[in-house]
Amino acid sequence: MSVALVFQLLDYAGVFFFAFSGGMIAARKSLDPFGAAIVGAAAGMGGGTLRDILLGQLPVYWVDAPEYLAIAVAGALTGYYGSTLLSTGTGARRAALAWADAVGLSVFCVLGAQAGLAVGAHWAIAILTGVMTAAFGGLVRDVLVNDVPLVLREEIYALAALAGAAAYVAALALALPAGASAVGAALLAFAIRAAAMRFGWTLPSIGRID
Amino acid sequence: MSVALVFQLLDYAGVFFFAFSGGMIAARKSLDPFGAAIVGAAAGMGGGTLRDILLGQLPVYWVDAPEYLAIAVAGALTGYYGSTLLSTGTGARRAALAWADAVGLSVFCVLGAQAGLAVGAHWAIAILTGVMTAAFGGLVRDVLVNDVPLVLREEIYALAALAGAAAYVAALALALPAGASAVGAALLAFAIRAAAMRFGWTLPSIGRID
Amino acid sequence: MSVALVFQLLDYAGVFFFAFSGGMIAARKSLDPFGAAIVGAAAGMGGGTLRDILLGQLPVYWVDAPEYLAIAVAGALTGYYGSTLLSTGTGARRAALAWADAVGLSVFCVLGAQAGLAVGAHWAIAILTGVMTAAFGGLVRDVLVNDVPLVLREEIYALAALAGAAAYVAALALALPAGASAVGAALLAFAIRAAAMRFGWTLPSIGRID
Repeated sequence: MSVALVFQLLDYAGVFFFAFSGGMIAARKSLDPFGAAIVGAAAGMGGGTLRDILLGQLPVYWVDAPEYLAIAVAGALTGYYGSTLLSTGTGARRAALAWADAVGLSVFCVLGAQAGLAVGAHWAIAILTGVMTAAFGGLVRDVLVNDVPLVLREEIYALAALAGAAAYVAALALALPAGASAVGAALLAFAIRAAAMRFGWTLPSIGRID
Repeated sequence: MSVALVFQLLDYAGVFFFAFSGGMIAARKSLDPFGAAIVGAAAGMGGGTLRDILLGQLPVYWVDAPEYLAIAVAGALTGYYGSTLLSTGTGARRAALAWADAVGLSVFCVLGAQAGLAVGAHWAIAILTGVMTAAFGGLVRDVLVNDVPLVLREEIYALAALAGAAAYVAALALALPAGASAVGAALLAFAIRAAAMRFGWTLPSIGRID
Repeated sequence: MSVALVFQLLDYAGVFFFAFSGGMIAARKSLDPFGAAIVGAAAGMGGGTLRDILLGQLPVYWVDAPEYLAIAVAGALTGYYGSTLLSTGTGARRAALAWADAVGLSVFCVLGAQAGLAVGAHWAIAILTGVMTAAFGGLVRDVLVNDVPLVLREEIYALAALAGAAAYVAALALALPAGASAVGAALLAFAIRAAAMRFGWTLPSIGRID
């Protein structure tokens, strides 16, 4: 499998799973199917759109690649109508949403870091573009439906994305192959996020002070 | 009337009416006149700004055309001070806001689709840029004043914009004249939105599930 | 001191103080340190990022200048942990946040206007880019933590930024030296904002009407 194909498949997966999370949250908020498509498309395509804008890769990627819109809408509607199938109640639906979100996060942190490196950015900036690409879609999704963004509620969230982006940048600096590095870094980010979700890991914070 | 002039007038109308809706909502939220100008300018100029950014038409259109800022501020202040003249109570004000918003929506879905086609985008993407151009100004307006966005609350809203954008794209594909197609597609979008407002049309949604 | 150095130092100061305000608000909202870094970076770097996007100066400025990220994170963490040192209660913390925000606002209105003039924009548009650059970081900060934005709550806020941007544009039109004009205009904006905070100045608004 060529490196380009690996990146392509990761990208499609990220768009689909984030859009799926958007469709699920739209169902929770009783939006109609069209609203679900909007929230899902914003979740799935928001991160890459911000990445392209910040890095000056315009028009943004989906203008010349309409399949992304199709994938996003498919993911959104799958999440929206799939919500009704998870009949075991709130817990199962919230878990499905969080796991789909974790897949998108893990994939996009690597793709965002790769995009930063591709325009010659400093490694610290490539990590930043990775985190922003990973977090922005979910952020827009949550702001649209008036939730406090997951990225600010969940303590090991942006941090998982940061670990994935940093691992990818470090792997390339060590001259490891790009495709394997991308998959490995995405799996690392996913493992950290999964462990945080499963074991309730948190960061120490100062208490509420005001 | 030349085609360019038709598009120019539609654009001015869209900016004015969206800015008017922003001024009205600023009055409802007890903002001062300067805040009304901010919310109005964001509503009137937000959609076209996002369109230009996504399509890489930078600097954005109003940087070289300061009359748009003047039109937006005029629209915002008209809506702000005009709110006090509608003394028949909440209903009349909410209706005026919704109708102004519908005019902006109808015009911008066509202009956004035209902008997408102009950079050579796929027809599905041109429809998407039409919907985003139409919806984004109102979205920013509502997020700024902490309302749930109209585009997510109203079921036949983005759908009306989609119909207008699709009709315009289809008309051009059939080689109909651009100016008449633009006006006709905008009227179609307006008619759908108006009917939804007047008759309370909704889309079937799955119930609240969480 | 060269003109370029003056602008550079003003820019660093704006990023630091806005990021500081973001770190303080993150502490108030009980976010963890990583969330504080996110909110702080968004506050410190958001205004300049929007400015660069609107004016087409891409990639945005911090992609090639990683020191901005370092300054923003340093500012955010200083604000976050510094919050616990202000033990005299809510009042002192809110005041520190507002003063830091006022410094950022004053500096960025001038830098944003300068950026607008640099691409040849009309003076009214340069003032607009000044106000947007000054207001956007704080706006994103407040939206992220689900507060009503300060720019909409405080009546003499965007107006102070407008005064600073207009003073800078006017000073250049009168052929005054750029460095001194920038510092003077920033001090003017700060003085207006400070007076509004200190003396509770407001603009006349129409009452709540809905």
